[in-house]
Amino acid sequence: METKQALKTYIEQLRGLHFGDMYEGDFFLTWEKTDEELAAVFAVADALRSLREANISTKVFDSGLGVSLFRDNSTRTRFSFASACNMLGLEVQDLDEGKSQIAHGETVRETANMISFMADVIGIRDDMYIGKGNTYMHQVVDAVAQGHADGILEQKPTLVNLQCDIDHPTQCMADMLHIIHTFGGVENLKGKKLAMTWAYSPSYGKPLSVPQGVIGLMTRFGMDVVLAHPQGYEVMGDVEKVAGANAARSQGSFTKTYSMAEAFRDADIVYPKSWAPYAAMEKRTDLYGAGDGDGIKALEKELLAQNAQHKDWACTEELMKTTRGGKALYLHCLPADITGVSCEAGEVDASVFDRYRTPLYKQASFKPYIIAAMIFLAKFRDPAVTLEALEKRGKVRKVQ
Amino acid sequence: METKQALKTYIEQLRGLHFGDMYEGDFFLTWEKTDEELAAVFAVADALRSLREANISTKVFDSGLGVSLFRDNSTRTRFSFASACNMLGLEVQDLDEGKSQIAHGETVRETANMISFMADVIGIRDDMYIGKGNTYMHQVVDAVAQGHADGILEQKPTLVNLQCDIDHPTQCMADMLHIIHTFGGVENLKGKKLAMTWAYSPSYGKPLSVPQGVIGLMTRFGMDVVLAHPQGYEVMGDVEKVAGANAARSQGSFTKTYSMAEAFRDADIVYPKSWAPYAAMEKRTDLYGAGDGDGIKALEKELLAQNAQHKDWACTEELMKTTRGGKALYLHCLPADITGVSCEAGEVDASVFDRYRTPLYKQASFKPYIIAAMIFLAKFRDPAVTLEALEKRGKVRKVQ
Amino acid sequence: METKQALKTYIEQLRGLHFGDMYEGDFFLTWEKTDEELAAVFAVADALRSLREANISTKVFDSGLGVSLFRDNSTRTRFSFASACNMLGLEVQDLDEGKSQIAHGETVRETANMISFMADVIGIRDDMYIGKGNTYMHQVVDAVAQGHADGILEQKPTLVNLQCDIDHPTQCMADMLHIIHTFGGVENLKGKKLAMTWAYSPSYGKPLSVPQGVIGLMTRFGMDVVLAHPQGYEVMGDVEKVAGANAARSQGSFTKTYSMAEAFRDADIVYPKSWAPYAAMEKRTDLYGAGDGDGIKALEKELLAQNAQHKDWACTEELMKTTRGGKALYLHCLPADITGVSCEAGEVDASVFDRYRTPLYKQASFKPYIIAAMIFLAKFRDPAVTLEALEKRGKVRKVQ
Repeated sequence: METKQALKTYIEQLRGLHFGDMYEGDFFLTWEKTDEELAAVFAVADALRSLREANISTKVFDSGLGVSLFRDNSTRTRFSFASACNMLGLEVQDLDEGKSQIAHGETVRETANMISFMADVIGIRDDMYIGKGNTYMHQVVDAVAQGHADGILEQKPTLVNLQCDIDHPTQCMADMLHIIHTFGGVENLKGKKLAMTWAYSPSYGKPLSVPQGVIGLMTRFGMDVVLAHPQGYEVMGDVEKVAGANAARSQGSFTKTYSMAEAFRDADIVYPKSWAPYAAMEKRTDLYGAGDGDGIKALEKELLAQNAQHKDWACTEELMKTTRGGKALYLHCLPADITGVSCEAGEVDASVFDRYRTPLYKQASFKPYIIAAMIFLAKFRDPAVTLEALEKRGKVRKVQ
Repeated sequence: METKQALKTYIEQLRGLHFGDMYEGDFFLTWEKTDEELAAVFAVADALRSLREANISTKVFDSGLGVSLFRDNSTRTRFSFASACNMLGLEVQDLDEGKSQIAHGETVRETANMISFMADVIGIRDDMYIGKGNTYMHQVVDAVAQGHADGILEQKPTLVNLQCDIDHPTQCMADMLHIIHTFGGVENLKGKKLAMTWAYSPSYGKPLSVPQGVIGLMTRFGMDVVLAHPQGYEVMGDVEKVAGANAARSQGSFTKTYSMAEAFRDADIVYPKSWAPYAAMEKRTDLYGAGDGDGIKALEKELLAQNAQHKDWACTEELMKTTRGGKALYLHCLPADITGVSCEAGEVDASVFDRYRTPLYKQASFKPYIIAAMIFLAKFRDPAVTLEALEKRGKVRKVQ
Repeated sequence: METKQALKTYIEQLRGLHFGDMYEGDFFLTWEKTDEELAAVFAVADALRSLREANISTKVFDSGLGVSLFRDNSTRTRFSFASACNMLGLEVQDLDEGKSQIAHGETVRETANMISFMADVIGIRDDMYIGKGNTYMHQVVDAVAQGHADGILEQKPTLVNLQCDIDHPTQCMADMLHIIHTFGGVENLKGKKLAMTWAYSPSYGKPLSVPQGVIGLMTRFGMDVVLAHPQGYEVMGDVEKVAGANAARSQGSFTKTYSMAEAFRDADIVYPKSWAPYAAMEKRTDLYGAGDGDGIKALEKELLAQNAQHKDWACTEELMKTTRGGKALYLHCLPADITGVSCEAGEVDASVFDRYRTPLYKQASFKPYIIAAMIFLAKFRDPAVTLEALEKRGKVRKVQ
């Protein structure tokens, strides 16, 4: 009953929104979507979760493939994508092109079509090289859109960006939905302070897509978003510009600081996480392109040494005490480098992590629904009607 | 409406054909099938495509596995097989035995049964070693047929040859269906000239199964099939005999030439593609068998040098101009070696390839349906009735 | 009709049993289950097989994942698990953590939750290291049970032990169901002699989970179970104690001998199979833990030499003649080391193996149903009702 009522509410929310451009579209970057389009993703994600909680099957496809391409090892995102596809009735097929070998032009066009005869979705994670991942995704979309227009593909598969060099939209949208639920609605976020801060990690070269995705998205809800990192750990300038413009539009703010303490002070939400400097990642991309193994090793050494100068950038109990009431919502995309657990010194104190484990897992649990919602909105012209039809059909997910 | 009419036509075609031996059978080589059996595959493939275009689910299994075994890397065939299984309601499970390790006797028999308890289909690609792939497929079929007879397997999985050392039936049947649609029906093929010609590639050791499959199949429709290659690039003699007999029976012709120009002259269809000499592949198989690494390297060098003498065997604009009206249908199983794109000098001029890209992709798009049709005909005693039942059931593939 | 009658019988059997604790439970070790719980597994396995033989779909899930984690290469168990999941409507997703890297504490807890948002089942094979596999499985179950209690997971996935360092329950339960069917019912097993004996193999380090699983399970049915092996090939002492207690309770017997001949004499059932000494496996686990590569090599050499002293431990025709009427039921979990076929000298004579091939394959064919039954009993509060509902629903597995 309660779930059914919730479902009704989400469908009502959806009805009030404009998101017609998402139909037969793709999901690359959150800032390419309107506020209402993002709200539609949240509403559909919540609605799908309600249906599943009510043991109602959300299978909208009776066959079809969800193609995944991961250029990097992945467990979390892989399972989230597989779960989303499965929930909608699509079977996952992995396209294993290998890690290093980035295909160009003709090959991309051809492969994209060859795998898509029965594909309703393509999910790609390609975050390793600056200037490459997002570009590659666009090439794939251009190829399959052309293939569909030419009558080769009976459907245009929708692309879901599972992490690129610029944004990590499925992660950040899941993070955001978690924030919305935690604070009891998007209307309660106005004026809340969110600290996206760098944190020390003994590994190096962590992607920038999370901090960039966070400042590019979280600035849209009227919050005061602070980006904090040591000097030299700058993120993409273009994304900072997006964040600034967002903040202005939403009557929130976007500021930067080189002090973690300043960022944490009175924060309602903290997201402390390691990443590599943008300039270093650009350099690494060039070195890989040139096949300069020695250069890569030298860069690695240099970056680790640079990181080691900032071991004090950690989410400690002391720092947490300085947040709003000492109990800001702690976020992480996982896995975190936990001091004394997964490493000697890392991003977060063990006791902090322990206290937030359940909300952290809950945060992650939104990702399959976010992905499913992105697919859903690209596939159905009137998703509210389709959701209602699913409820009415009432097919059980698990026989009783 | 249009689709429904087409479906009706395909089912009518099917009703007029004799193909009863395909029920509970397997698909090894096209020349082991009668003309009507092949026509049945085309009709069912077209019918399944019509159903999918009409958004009608073609799931005929509510559970069951499609086992795939690829002894060679494969993206296109893997996705075609996965698509075919998915379309019928079967879940793909890969049997990963590794590339090199060819199992014998007891192991084949045992493994074949152990993977087949719930398997409705087994798809195998094993094209690397002369005299091995097709033999292996027969061992698998013998094993599961015995297992079924002995009451171990509740169903006999049907084997689909996804490429062996002799034939590539799913490829060539897809190529043929593309030809049929392009020329507006099999009845329009009489007297058409098809040139299956060798073309230069900077790689070596490409399988013979495509040229062999093409001359073994395309000679059955009254066409004038010409096989062209440089001296020393002979294909299997047995298959040439098949082609000759086919041509005689269908009142077409099968001829050979050492001149690409001669083959292209006034051709209606051209299929320029690299392959390795049969004798060299036999030698390589022996060298692999003997574990003679140095011998393999020497052979590789020799073959590349031999290839390099025939760089003039390329599908150029000049050559294309000599075909019927300058616009023969250009075929390739993909990926092609495109001059100036994927290599310095290759099988085809970039401008030729560009002009034919859409039809080439369309050609490839038939493969999932061909595979599904082969499975369908092995599984249903009266496929016309089953197809009609699917239409009548009218279950949507994608909810509206 | 016959199948339907059989189904009715199995459901009746089920109704007479107490197995309420299996609901929402897990399957680690057979000796943690009551006799009635094991009987319930057999009854459900037989019922599911009857449904499939009657072409009735047993899909009880309309979406959902079955996660598999294999720390060792596996074809048989992998396909059995995939078949079981498929039969119930779950899609398999492999969690590939690699072979060697055993995750600890936080990582296990986190990964277990991250893969389980849509998981109804987790199947794990982890048999390589003494004291690790079973422990790991418990960590996974503790993590997901907590995740479910905390509202992170909408369902608690059930764990199926696909082989650990202690037991191989899906194998031994399949073996047992094969015995039950061969002897026409569990009531006919009282007083039957079963010989679980070591046999020579030219490989080393074969897991102990099969002999341990066999003596831990087969002693529960009033049989006279004899464990035979050369001196030095002892199995886990704790499991021997379980076997002894079982035998006392079931009014059978559990004895040990160093003579294969004595074990085979008048045996009704023989299970000759190689395994590594428990003490050696413990040592190996320590060496791996210490990363002592030289130590591992030395141990391997030592074990092979030790094995070679017992080449006379083979299931020969002569030995088979000494069994009850010369025709004991020969069991093996496959693949067997067959003398003159897969090795020069091995576990069993080729002629013996040949004679028993069909029953051996039949034995293996129970495993998918056993796994499915374990899942079924963990998922449905009243499985008899659910089975009846499936029959009544009468959805065909394969369209006719």
